[in-house]
Amino acid sequence: MQTPIPVKALVFDVFGTVVDWRSAIIEEGRQWKHRKKWKVDWATFADRWRAGYGPAMDKARKGQLPWKRIDELHRMILDELIKEFSLTGLTEPEMDQLNRVWHRLKPWPDAVAGRSRLKKQYIVATLSNGNVSFLTNMAKHAGLPWDAVLSAELAPHYKPDPEAYLTAAHLPGCQPAQALMVAAHRGDLDAARKTGLRTAFVHRPNEYGPARKAGAAKAGEYDYVANDFLDLAAKLNA
Amino acid sequence: MQTPIPVKALVFDVFGTVVDWRSAIIEEGRQWKHRKKWKVDWATFADRWRAGYGPAMDKARKGQLPWKRIDELHRMILDELIKEFSLTGLTEPEMDQLNRVWHRLKPWPDAVAGRSRLKKQYIVATLSNGNVSFLTNMAKHAGLPWDAVLSAELAPHYKPDPEAYLTAAHLPGCQPAQALMVAAHRGDLDAARKTGLRTAFVHRPNEYGPARKAGAAKAGEYDYVANDFLDLAAKLNA
Repeated sequence: MQTPIPVKALVFDVFGTVVDWRSAIIEEGRQWKHRKKWKVDWATFADRWRAGYGPAMDKARKGQLPWKRIDELHRMILDELIKEFSLTGLTEPEMDQLNRVWHRLKPWPDAVAGRSRLKKQYIVATLSNGNVSFLTNMAKHAGLPWDAVLSAELAPHYKPDPEAYLTAAHLPGCQPAQALMVAAHRGDLDAARKTGLRTAFVHRPNEYGPARKAGAAKAGEYDYVANDFLDLAAKLNA
Repeated sequence: MQTPIPVKALVFDVFGTVVDWRSAIIEEGRQWKHRKKWKVDWATFADRWRAGYGPAMDKARKGQLPWKRIDELHRMILDELIKEFSLTGLTEPEMDQLNRVWHRLKPWPDAVAGRSRLKKQYIVATLSNGNVSFLTNMAKHAGLPWDAVLSAELAPHYKPDPEAYLTAAHLPGCQPAQALMVAAHRGDLDAARKTGLRTAFVHRPNEYGPARKAGAAKAGEYDYVANDFLDLAAKLNA
């Protein structure tokens, strides 16, 4: 039996895998309550905002939209939600501030400690559909410095296009099999595996809140299946 | 008089500006002395290796060579120097190890402390002709984490082509005038300024050793002229 090539770099999906977008948006909504007289179910608002992202990105992927930064995609969706949820009386700077909640997302409780352990032994990088400036701001805000901020923007192809994964392996100097894609989403990992990357599924059972079940995987379905980043660090001997 | 747009990101030239390549190569040479019976003036060797880099890169810039990673350019020059300096008896892994001395360069004494101060207030990124994996390894080795590892590779155009500077401003979300190029080399800053970036000259009087004078600038020739990174931090109120 051949010994597998050692992993050199870990590339992390960000939304849902590293940071908890849903709680942050709900919390942001609560803060707006003191300034505006809206009646909004912020959990539903958060879910709708996130749900709009995939279809908007797919339009860009299929060339129906020109390449857009994630801030612009989020803003396109937000403009619709502002009408739908009757968020009246917002000035342009306020809309911009609300849109930038995505820059202020907070890491899952295990993310900083687990990733720090992994960082001592491996190159740790992002691989998100978020653009570089977005990921840079978020890392600075969340206290999550990366060895390299990699993004679909550098390909430029959104995940799950193969170019996104191959670029994220190539830029830190890896053969595909030396790069380990870390994500809480099966679709992301399945696409990464097709390009030759190794895969690690991390459970994030609360990503979508109590009403919707998050993705899951059994041991053996990916190279690693972990409960959180600390568990992943243990499995990678970091 | 118009107030200038505030600086948001600092992009740093690396070789000579952040790290002292010359001392590192001389030191590496001393270590090889115990293993091989060579008689080499390592200071001259270091200077020749560095001197070969500009012309090799220019060939790539002018399309006489296909785009090459810096490791490959360094290796092309090293292969010539191995013959010229009669470095006999090197195995292929040894040649690779020697070539990778560029991954193990050490920061100037003020660089870590000065850049840490700047990092608290600004986005700090590289902008080197070195490729992303190279810069990532070097940052990890030198204990110099960047908010973003930016490289000519992402343009892909080597400095001083304008695309390199414009990409380094664009990726962290800056207008050119919101990005400050930090370098110890006038040519680099002059090219950055032409694309609209702000400029900071940092004196590195020992870059080329005692025999060759390093570049210099007077106050007022660039937006900032500093003696080192701590002085630059003071001038930027960081």
